[in-house]
Amino acid sequence: MDTKPGDAEAKPGKTEDSDFKVTPWEVTGKVDYDKLIKRFGTQRISSAIKRDMEKIADGKLHVMLRRDIFFSHRDLDLVLKDYRDGKGFFLYTGRGPSLGMHIGHLAPFVFTKWLQDVFGVNLYIEITDDEKFMRNSDYTIEQVGEAARQNILDIVAVGFDPDKTFIFKDSEYIKNIYPLVTKIAKKINFSQVRSTFGFDPSTNIGMIFYPAIQIVPTMFENKRCLIPAAIDQDPYWRLQRDLAESLGYYKAAEIHSKFLPPLSGIEGKMSSSTADSAVYLTDPPEIVENKIMKYAFSGGQSTVEEQRRLGANVDVDVPFQWLYYLFDDDDSEVERIRSEYSSGKMLTGEVKKVLAEKLNGFLGEHRRRREKSPEMLDKFMYSGELAKRMWRRIYE
Amino acid sequence: MDTKPGDAEAKPGKTEDSDFKVTPWEVTGKVDYDKLIKRFGTQRISSAIKRDMEKIADGKLHVMLRRDIFFSHRDLDLVLKDYRDGKGFFLYTGRGPSLGMHIGHLAPFVFTKWLQDVFGVNLYIEITDDEKFMRNSDYTIEQVGEAARQNILDIVAVGFDPDKTFIFKDSEYIKNIYPLVTKIAKKINFSQVRSTFGFDPSTNIGMIFYPAIQIVPTMFENKRCLIPAAIDQDPYWRLQRDLAESLGYYKAAEIHSKFLPPLSGIEGKMSSSTADSAVYLTDPPEIVENKIMKYAFSGGQSTVEEQRRLGANVDVDVPFQWLYYLFDDDDSEVERIRSEYSSGKMLTGEVKKVLAEKLNGFLGEHRRRREKSPEMLDKFMYSGELAKRMWRRIYE
Repeated sequence: MDTKPGDAEAKPGKTEDSDFKVTPWEVTGKVDYDKLIKRFGTQRISSAIKRDMEKIADGKLHVMLRRDIFFSHRDLDLVLKDYRDGKGFFLYTGRGPSLGMHIGHLAPFVFTKWLQDVFGVNLYIEITDDEKFMRNSDYTIEQVGEAARQNILDIVAVGFDPDKTFIFKDSEYIKNIYPLVTKIAKKINFSQVRSTFGFDPSTNIGMIFYPAIQIVPTMFENKRCLIPAAIDQDPYWRLQRDLAESLGYYKAAEIHSKFLPPLSGIEGKMSSSTADSAVYLTDPPEIVENKIMKYAFSGGQSTVEEQRRLGANVDVDVPFQWLYYLFDDDDSEVERIRSEYSSGKMLTGEVKKVLAEKLNGFLGEHRRRREKSPEMLDKFMYSGELAKRMWRRIYE
Repeated sequence: MDTKPGDAEAKPGKTEDSDFKVTPWEVTGKVDYDKLIKRFGTQRISSAIKRDMEKIADGKLHVMLRRDIFFSHRDLDLVLKDYRDGKGFFLYTGRGPSLGMHIGHLAPFVFTKWLQDVFGVNLYIEITDDEKFMRNSDYTIEQVGEAARQNILDIVAVGFDPDKTFIFKDSEYIKNIYPLVTKIAKKINFSQVRSTFGFDPSTNIGMIFYPAIQIVPTMFENKRCLIPAAIDQDPYWRLQRDLAESLGYYKAAEIHSKFLPPLSGIEGKMSSSTADSAVYLTDPPEIVENKIMKYAFSGGQSTVEEQRRLGANVDVDVPFQWLYYLFDDDDSEVERIRSEYSSGKMLTGEVKKVLAEKLNGFLGEHRRRREKSPEMLDKFMYSGELAKRMWRRIYE
């Protein structure tokens, strides 16, 4: 849905004819991604675009692109053209710090690293500690500070280029961006944030102002900015695209992912606040296995006999959906599982076991890399090539 | 008027039964200061308070206090009690930078210097370059930056204690205050700023957020903060007083001045944008004299004969009001002029001449001190004792 400033009746991310809702703070219901593309006014990633990217990536697309987990975009075609023309582009993504970082939070960073590796471009990662604090009545500044530190260590572990990546906290970098933030804020009024985000007169003035701060990194370079993120962040970029050119910058380009479903079922998105429905980056192997075995919603039948006879519905089977989303990179293996599980040859327990192994492999590797994060953190935030340049800049 | 959050019908600073309006951005009509005290819910400065201050000031009150130009307050009695009890307090005032700084802009600073001299306390001066830029559609960041520099030089010339005074621009000091700003912003919603300032859905999100930034210096020390300023700034302090204690700080105390009337007449307040009605700090003596002679609204009669016979109405006579406001410190001399001018013994031209001389004396001294401002500026902003301490602090 393209909401319009001043349209008081607009219900952002929700229309009469649907039973799902997508906002930056809430995803509920079974998301119909075809409808969402129409509602938000974005473009489906075409086979032509995928072929283009495949060529640039020496023949191998990232699993999340091959499987349409990253499925929608704005101006990705223009980004690729700028890249081919030698103008280049840059990447921007971010994280609202919270202590329970789960695998759904890490997935876009894993994909973003692939983009940086393929295109060799600069990447800016905004840690939105200000927004997190202002949005949540029960968070203290100290808690958000600790969550930010832990999350940054996890992000560093993803393995970005330390001389081409700048990770910054809003609270620390605010002085360098504030003049440009005021320019952006001057171009957005309450009507617009009300209709874009569903704010009302009881919304605090920090939340009302914050969109200007999330928009500013799209103007860090005089090139097109590509934002890899889940599609729920799109409202921010719609605001950005309405004003960017009037300030002499490009409209932000985006590449949108679907949501990783919670263990409990394929509706909504994984949430940190429901411990049984999320797999945290800190969960040890036995906990991961236990959560999957015990809580993962199955599309299989309730008895072995029925499963052998009728097979599973993989479309609603969370273990299969997780393998497909990111955690089994081998396309032929995933298709074998789909076929054998759908036909009843494989049982739910077997698929869950595959997922537990894959996920524990993924998490084990992540934790090994994370041990080195503390010594790398300084480069990403302060002393790497890009970070050093950024601390010298004031954006006006 | 005490406006209430959520009261959409409230017209801040304006009620049905009056023909004047006072908001932080606009003063129109002939202000009835008695009515304004009731409307804003402030206290008149009592003779008891004046006697207290006189004692502390070794028997001599500042001219603006003696003559009730500073006429209203909130919690000034508590500030004086804290001072006597040895707890102390601190001063805070500010300036929205603009190129045409006039004598009305300087007056509160002159009074603030007197307060600092008498009480020996720290003073914080906020240069609100962010607000100025976001409020005025035709200002660029560069223009505001140049105005800020010029205004700071004028403020430095007032002669504050360079080791007890910190002058800062919001755009530069934002990083040090931002965590506390987010705490304040979290406690104010759109309803409140709408009813307090008359904002509406077309107000930009920077202006909506800004009150949190004007409030934060009231929390620079864990003492009571006394704000000397014209009474039009009171709405900010009403918001501050609603939330300060919940964050562990004192409610701001204020001492409010009346407005210096424009040359054109005693309605409204002097404005930079009407050149003939204002006397700028940069006006040379012959221009000052010419403006007063030519444009100052006179309460005298239209002919010499009538003036001799009927005398002047000094209550609407701008030259007399200016002498009374600040520019003739000699009480007996001012009373002599009042008496002789009212009775017709003095003519308008003579009173205007007295004002021109006094004002040119005041401006000449100011300009002499301002020549030394460039070499002093660094102490007030960065290298003085208080400034150095402030740059090391982060307010959470």
